[in-house]
Amino acid sequence: MTRAGVPSPGLSEADLDTPALVVDLDALERNLDRMAVAAHAAGVALRPHVKTHKSVTIARMQLERGAVGVCVQTVSEAEAMVAGGIGDVFVANEVVGAGKLRRLARLAREATITVCVDDAGNLDDLGSAVLRAGSSVGVMVEMNTAEYRAGVPPGEPFLHLAQRVESAPSLRFVGLQAYNGVAQHIRDHPSRLAATERNTARVQESVELLARHGIRCRVVSGGGTGTYNLEAASEVYNEIQPGTYVFMDADYLANRDRLGGPFRDFEVSLYVLASVMSRRRGIAILDAGLKAISLGNGLPLVQGGGARYKRFADEHGVLAPSDGPLPALGHQVRLIPVNCDPTVNLYDRLVAVRSGVVEAIWPVDARGY
Amino acid sequence: MTRAGVPSPGLSEADLDTPALVVDLDALERNLDRMAVAAHAAGVALRPHVKTHKSVTIARMQLERGAVGVCVQTVSEAEAMVAGGIGDVFVANEVVGAGKLRRLARLAREATITVCVDDAGNLDDLGSAVLRAGSSVGVMVEMNTAEYRAGVPPGEPFLHLAQRVESAPSLRFVGLQAYNGVAQHIRDHPSRLAATERNTARVQESVELLARHGIRCRVVSGGGTGTYNLEAASEVYNEIQPGTYVFMDADYLANRDRLGGPFRDFEVSLYVLASVMSRRRGIAILDAGLKAISLGNGLPLVQGGGARYKRFADEHGVLAPSDGPLPALGHQVRLIPVNCDPTVNLYDRLVAVRSGVVEAIWPVDARGY
Repeated sequence: MTRAGVPSPGLSEADLDTPALVVDLDALERNLDRMAVAAHAAGVALRPHVKTHKSVTIARMQLERGAVGVCVQTVSEAEAMVAGGIGDVFVANEVVGAGKLRRLARLAREATITVCVDDAGNLDDLGSAVLRAGSSVGVMVEMNTAEYRAGVPPGEPFLHLAQRVESAPSLRFVGLQAYNGVAQHIRDHPSRLAATERNTARVQESVELLARHGIRCRVVSGGGTGTYNLEAASEVYNEIQPGTYVFMDADYLANRDRLGGPFRDFEVSLYVLASVMSRRRGIAILDAGLKAISLGNGLPLVQGGGARYKRFADEHGVLAPSDGPLPALGHQVRLIPVNCDPTVNLYDRLVAVRSGVVEAIWPVDARGY
Repeated sequence: MTRAGVPSPGLSEADLDTPALVVDLDALERNLDRMAVAAHAAGVALRPHVKTHKSVTIARMQLERGAVGVCVQTVSEAEAMVAGGIGDVFVANEVVGAGKLRRLARLAREATITVCVDDAGNLDDLGSAVLRAGSSVGVMVEMNTAEYRAGVPPGEPFLHLAQRVESAPSLRFVGLQAYNGVAQHIRDHPSRLAATERNTARVQESVELLARHGIRCRVVSGGGTGTYNLEAASEVYNEIQPGTYVFMDADYLANRDRLGGPFRDFEVSLYVLASVMSRRRGIAILDAGLKAISLGNGLPLVQGGGARYKRFADEHGVLAPSDGPLPALGHQVRLIPVNCDPTVNLYDRLVAVRSGVVEAIWPVDARGY
């Protein structure tokens, strides 16, 4: 089905039908450059997580700036990336179930595929699927970093699973995955640093334990947008996997930097463009609710302030005044999501804008995958 | 791009790759029948809201059971329905902005289109767009029902806008829209009834005011899954527009009926099928988080109990035990969303299952629209 209302390059942002998912190209490119420079300067590999943008176009921009490959979260994201020509994909997650393992093993005929494992039975299933497909898959053993996350405990359990990978004929042991998800969102820098150092010490112990048993962790991977610089400087991790830095979101904007100031290593490049579709005294109703912006982690910020996003329904949001006047009927408002990843996942395409003019329309290739 | 992992009819539900959005056909058909019978018995028109399912296939099933047309929430949903052959579409919402008004006016060349209005300037813009398109559009004036909803106040403001519609050459005044959204989710029946009666009295006054000025409201439309029977019995409304009844969700399950028992006029026919992808003592990590189930209104129920959905991340959910054992690694779990509409909007397709076997795959035609 063709869809009316798809914008064309050259259109003014002010004429976009809303809601629309807009990326500011200048800001995006600055973010991409900054992370590439930071990884290079620290001497670590950059393997960005594409679950944030799900876009082959942006993945290519990351590879052009020196990324060694990409991380994905699901088999279908991996399929979308390989279909788009990305040759090195790490599924930074466990893959469970016969159907998905078969798809993953077949995908490894076309590209370099690596996957996480945290269970011996699952590892055996993976090995069988890969043998049947006649391919080869790299394995990262995932180390647990927090109460509610996947992964085996550090130390002996980690060693035993790594040894089991080493003995599987169709699998290549690649190294250790330890993404410290909780630490990303710790607001103040000293606490974030301390949490990262605790985690890094456990990672180092496991790496050394494996070394004493003759197993080398070629790759030690982890680190998101909140702690990328800490893992990069750790001398334990040699690969970082940040995702959100490309767009930023209201959650990461609330982090503080080393000096206690706001975390501004990267800038907001993504927003949901909405319009006022009903207006009366004291409120403005927007055409952007639960179906236009993911609200599971909180309400979006209104760029430029003046009003705040106060309530939502499926297709509507309600703005109330804060320190300025409410926008008029038909006027546009830019909303900054608290969590950009599931917001991007609501859209079939990204509208790429430079200086207020549409420059390109990019498919969200792995949307819903 | 073709996508691996799309299931085929005949596949067992147990072999579905997860997360998957599954509809139980027997339960769906019973829900469709029950609402059709209830509307017919009450002598009101049924115009189901398709923002819930966004599926042309299900819209057709509703029309086959006597629905007079469908409601949609956006112009792009209307476009998807008309492209799918639905001939009578009511956009139960205001449409603001030159681009969207132009699309709406053009769509009215192909199908019977009606739209809500709550502002004189917007009405004039609509009239101009329709004149330019050489089509004709029906107008429902929306009456405000609650603090945070669109619509003009009842009484004089309502009358003045209706008169302005009557005088517009390209527009047809159809009637009054008053969807009492807040009342749908009032848990106990006496309070829900009282809120509906208060609203209905205001609707009746406005209808009578218009009649005294020679304007007839041919259609008085409103009523969702929570109050469909109350508007249907009101003798003021002559059209109901429920959406969620096709699938039900955990929110409506919490309503109480007239006798104080649980509201069970309709049954749960929709769930997100998830799998355990990591497991250890005390927790099971599922492959269904924010990208698989809309969590803006709360956490899903686990069908059959035993465990509860306790935490979430973008791609993951954490189950903790409640009154039973946790599922094992690889096992499937059915999650009932608190809000089905934005959950359906996450998926490109619905997997239609009967007695545990896939019978059909239905596109979510208006997904993201």
